[in-house]
Amino acid sequence: MESLSTLTGKYGEEGDQLLFKVLNNGDFLSKADEKALQNRNSSALIPSIARRGLRYDLTVPFARFLVMHQNELTFPFKRYQIQPVWRADRPQKGRYQEFYQCDADVAGSDSILYEAEFIQIFDQVFHELGLSVEIRLNNRKLLAGLAEVAGISDRMTAMTVAIDKLDKIGKDGVVRELEKAGMSKEAIYTVSSVLQTGRLSEETADLLSQTAIGRKGLEEIREVHEWLALAGPLHNTLTHDLTLARGLNYYTGCIFEVVSTESSMGSIGGGGRYDDLTGVFGLKGVSGVGISFGAERIYDLMEQLERFSEHTQDALQVLIIAFDQAAHQFGFTCLDTLRKAGIHAEIYPEPVKVRKQMKYADARRVPFTVLIGEEELTSGQLSLKNMRTGEQHALSLNQLINHLKTKATP
Amino acid sequence: MESLSTLTGKYGEEGDQLLFKVLNNGDFLSKADEKALQNRNSSALIPSIARRGLRYDLTVPFARFLVMHQNELTFPFKRYQIQPVWRADRPQKGRYQEFYQCDADVAGSDSILYEAEFIQIFDQVFHELGLSVEIRLNNRKLLAGLAEVAGISDRMTAMTVAIDKLDKIGKDGVVRELEKAGMSKEAIYTVSSVLQTGRLSEETADLLSQTAIGRKGLEEIREVHEWLALAGPLHNTLTHDLTLARGLNYYTGCIFEVVSTESSMGSIGGGGRYDDLTGVFGLKGVSGVGISFGAERIYDLMEQLERFSEHTQDALQVLIIAFDQAAHQFGFTCLDTLRKAGIHAEIYPEPVKVRKQMKYADARRVPFTVLIGEEELTSGQLSLKNMRTGEQHALSLNQLINHLKTKATP
Repeated sequence: MESLSTLTGKYGEEGDQLLFKVLNNGDFLSKADEKALQNRNSSALIPSIARRGLRYDLTVPFARFLVMHQNELTFPFKRYQIQPVWRADRPQKGRYQEFYQCDADVAGSDSILYEAEFIQIFDQVFHELGLSVEIRLNNRKLLAGLAEVAGISDRMTAMTVAIDKLDKIGKDGVVRELEKAGMSKEAIYTVSSVLQTGRLSEETADLLSQTAIGRKGLEEIREVHEWLALAGPLHNTLTHDLTLARGLNYYTGCIFEVVSTESSMGSIGGGGRYDDLTGVFGLKGVSGVGISFGAERIYDLMEQLERFSEHTQDALQVLIIAFDQAAHQFGFTCLDTLRKAGIHAEIYPEPVKVRKQMKYADARRVPFTVLIGEEELTSGQLSLKNMRTGEQHALSLNQLINHLKTKATP
Repeated sequence: MESLSTLTGKYGEEGDQLLFKVLNNGDFLSKADEKALQNRNSSALIPSIARRGLRYDLTVPFARFLVMHQNELTFPFKRYQIQPVWRADRPQKGRYQEFYQCDADVAGSDSILYEAEFIQIFDQVFHELGLSVEIRLNNRKLLAGLAEVAGISDRMTAMTVAIDKLDKIGKDGVVRELEKAGMSKEAIYTVSSVLQTGRLSEETADLLSQTAIGRKGLEEIREVHEWLALAGPLHNTLTHDLTLARGLNYYTGCIFEVVSTESSMGSIGGGGRYDDLTGVFGLKGVSGVGISFGAERIYDLMEQLERFSEHTQDALQVLIIAFDQAAHQFGFTCLDTLRKAGIHAEIYPEPVKVRKQMKYADARRVPFTVLIGEEELTSGQLSLKNMRTGEQHALSLNQLINHLKTKATP
């Protein structure tokens, strides 16, 4: 939860609509705005009955944190944060009302080096997850340059909002939006010529170089590449995409977006630089840059592409199955030894019929079972059964541990 | 978030008061209960303007999950869950409105073996955190036996609620509560005689054995000890505490509570068995047992007792400090090599004055810095500085990596 006042007005008008508000506890009507109540005016009533809201993202709460703790922190300050956020959007495939963001940010430096590092982080994380992605890079300053060249600097936000919808409404849709915003034919022509490819062609670069802000954007992009060239090659593709606007208004420099090259899942990562994030909370001059991973979408994508291995590191390796009470008690002592040896082991909680226990082992997809009956109690040799092949071996507990340690999966 | 109807009525009347409700989005007043609105009746209004609430704990949402997915799950079903929960309590030391619970539960078995395993989990986790704790064990059936012996079985809840307050209001306070509830002198005498020590003395055991439910409770406690005796000894103390009631009404068998032996932090863990948790959602006969760790309290305790090591595994091991632009670029290539070797390394983002970079290294408490200037660029030998001793060595990048790998901390 955050104070609603911390969240309101930070995500644009649409964002405010999507904030979840938490009702004040106790007799909240006793302090409600009487006029709003009488007029049945929901939005006017909110401030008097809900002083808290649910996080919409992790960036604004991070900014609030930076300002609150500015005297205790060392800048440049890096942090990562993995927490749920909430948006009152219509739920649909890949869009949840409650989901986890995984953010990393650096605040207190405008060094382009960090922008290169975030691209490296995207690259490495998705590589380690076994996902092939395209990392898209743009810079707000290029969009500002474009607006200036087109003579619509005063309508920069309207332009970026329109461009941001390119994926959804297509190029013609964007043109219509620009027309609706009352922009001239010439301006629209300039903007749409760049949208044509979205790539940073020499021609486009020349066009944007006509403005100081465009030159600065080109320079920043060039510097990102210089840093990356100094390190090892990326596993994934890095592309330029001038049509990448990302709705959030607080970006001022680089903008990132990550999409899968194997599926049309939409954005699974994003971020950018915000030159004045903490300004709204009274702390000027703190530049920051950060990225965010969308946990659920990445999870959905990995499920869809079957990138989760059947046997994860934490999966159950062996289930102990006891034939009677005495074997069950002995099995519990074995369980303790197995676990202390670092093996993920469980025992079926009762010495019920073996068939039932075996059925449970199958349902849990455990690769091995240890069978303990009267014979095993007498001999001290345990029966290790490979559940895939059906093979069974008589082993001492120590031999069994060694066997399981070398064969995590059958 | 959960449906408010999932949460309401599950935590007693006090719990309902402490639920945070999420205001419906959009024009919520248009569907508000007109009568409640006209009467300015806050609690009557809630259902019509807030259909969702924030989790009060993880157990009730777990029960809801079990019922929803009963046909896909294999029972006994184990899960752990680490998530925030919210309670509209007055915030104070050790009590937060938003905090993380770490829960582990087994559903679908009434085996006492699992109760022993949860004690082992408490024991091992706190041991690994370097905390000394007392694990308190009780059983609701013993409290039921006590109520029966005292002739107040019909007021079992009032009795446990009173006993639950023992820590706060003392024995005299509990007696007064029982008097207020209209219990007879004899009943109060029986109850308070047991409260005297809280220990499960032979005398108390004899008393409780007079009832079938008391005998069952004693038997369950004996069985927990039998299982534990089969495994290795515990690191921490396990005690019986008949005064342990824990407010939550859904417990029916064993009850756990963990307290620090080194600080008066209050409960840092708890749990118990609930024989019919899912019954309220329409699925009968699923017995469960589970435990919960209070993350913030454990964190506070570890801070208070200074149990966090200064250098954690993830802490920065080395900071690269460059004297000029060329050194800065070379430093970035070294950074990449260091990180690929598994060393936590950073580079100061700009080749600013060395004093400023050194101040930053001190503030970050980094054990080593690598200094790169013109000399280092020419010789290819880097200067590794031990920030604690001030010692400085000229090393190749490979030597430097080997040095850092063997000396994680200075």
